[in-house]
Amino acid sequence: MRKLKELKTGKAKRLYTTDDPEVLWVEYLDQATALNGKRKEQIATKGALNNQIDSLLFDYLIANGVPTDFIRQVSATEQLIHPVKMIPLEVVVRNLASGSFQRKFATDYLQPLKQPIVELFYKSDELDDPFMNDDQVTALGIASAVELVQIKQLALQINQLLIARFAQGQLTLVDFKIEVGYLNGQLVLADEISPDSCRLVDTTTQESLDKDVFRKHTGDLTTVYREVLTRLQNSEVAHVSR
Amino acid sequence: MRKLKELKTGKAKRLYTTDDPEVLWVEYLDQATALNGKRKEQIATKGALNNQIDSLLFDYLIANGVPTDFIRQVSATEQLIHPVKMIPLEVVVRNLASGSFQRKFATDYLQPLKQPIVELFYKSDELDDPFMNDDQVTALGIASAVELVQIKQLALQINQLLIARFAQGQLTLVDFKIEVGYLNGQLVLADEISPDSCRLVDTTTQESLDKDVFRKHTGDLTTVYREVLTRLQNSEVAHVSR
Ligand SMILES: Nc1ncnc2c1ncn2[C@@H]1O[C@H](COP(=O)(O)OP(=O)(O)O)[C@@H](O)[C@H]1O
Ligand SMILES: Nc1ncnc2c1ncn2[C@@H]1O[C@H](COP(=O)(O)OP(=O)(O)O)[C@@H](O)[C@H]1O
Ligand SMILES: [Mg+2]
Ligand SMILES: [Mg+2]
Repeated sequence: MRKLKELKTGKAKRLYTTDDPEVLWVEYLDQATALNGKRKEQIATKGALNNQIDSLLFDYLIANGVPTDFIRQVSATEQLIHPVKMIPLEVVVRNLASGSFQRKFATDYLQPLKQPIVELFYKSDELDDPFMNDDQVTALGIASAVELVQIKQLALQINQLLIARFAQGQLTLVDFKIEVGYLNGQLVLADEISPDSCRLVDTTTQESLDKDVFRKHTGDLTTVYREVLTRLQNSEVAHVSR
Repeated sequence: MRKLKELKTGKAKRLYTTDDPEVLWVEYLDQATALNGKRKEQIATKGALNNQIDSLLFDYLIANGVPTDFIRQVSATEQLIHPVKMIPLEVVVRNLASGSFQRKFATDYLQPLKQPIVELFYKSDELDDPFMNDDQVTALGIASAVELVQIKQLALQINQLLIARFAQGQLTLVDFKIEVGYLNGQLVLADEISPDSCRLVDTTTQESLDKDVFRKHTGDLTTVYREVLTRLQNSEVAHVSR
């Protein structure tokens, strides 16, 4: 397997083509962003921490039957994935009120919700990732109603599995964002799952252990990401009965 | 029937109790607002125009089987309605792109949509009427999933009927907002339907004939509302086959 040329570079990762058209080479970058990329900082070891956390979680999800784009970790900062026809949606699942949801509805921080909430945001830098409802998604032709049912089902399945896995490390999953797409006609989880894209709090102290420490300038990013990785490595893999 | 005391006053109407607990007396006000009430102007005859347009449209919807809160018009500016347990949602139906939808998704003005879109906004002045998806509505306990299905069905039925009725007056229904609630356990259309809550354009010229002329300072409100009333009065009642 050889890296060929750069395919695309986002805010957190660089994707390369390889000599195998069914494989992409991913490099996790030492870069943290906030405010949709308007604030940007270089942070040593962030790429390695996210790559390791993401690889561990994708291995776990695959073992529990979730279809993904992930092949395997190949170095501290790199992994191999399958190229996916991405659906331009950010799919957010919330278990407890926080972030934009808390602000919008003036709820308490970490207020419990009657059921997990799925939110869809149009992945468009020019439009500033607008929040969409299902009718808007289908009327604009971004995904069909049938696809939306499948996307939400996948998101909620991943939510249950992640809740259980993080709980092994005394971490409460407040909310997270995933991206999905098609691989050989099948809907799969793609992109990443890391403290960049999850809100995690210590189950006992409710201390933030995710990118919120960077967003809000309340702590050191590498310290908390390392803590998340250590807790996941040191905890049993959850046996989730489905 | 006697007006008793003022029950509530909104931006467009004043509701009074009557000697019959099952009847409210509504007075349409000569007031126009924009920017969620931050801009406010007194406009003579607006109350009478909206009351007449609303009464004509509710009579038409009732004749076509839509359950509503409406009883009858009693004067130029007044009508009788049934008190309804309101659901705190603004239910918007869009047929063509305009307003906040057009801005959010950078579409063309009046761009056709693959299908009518229903949008829900939480009716809350403090929260500035936030846009919500179904999961948020159910998780916050504002309405149940079953109620949402019924609300959307009612909204889309009203949309089809209004499209047909306005077409008789050479008016294209771009979008509109309704409010709904429960009357004796039944979901009904409540509140008002008028050029305050509808976007209408002349079918041929695409000239705006609604509150947009006030919002955007592009025309005289009473002139266009009078035009809408006249066109509805002079046109045949649509015979909509269902
Ligand atoms: N399996 C995949 N195939 C193709 N593109 C992918 C895959 N997984 C993720 N991507 C895309 O790679 C790009 C780079 O990722 P990232 O740096 O996280 O970007 P962003 O700045 O959009 O968050 C993103 O556009 C993401 O959607
Ligand atoms: N049938 C009804 N029973 C009770 N309240 C109603 C009914 N129809 C409308 N309302 C409410 O009457 C109030 C006054 O109406 P309006 O002046 O349009 O208020 P707003 O400023 O909220 O637009 C609103 O809160 C509206 O929801
Ligand atoms: Mg990303
Ligand atoms: Mg109103």
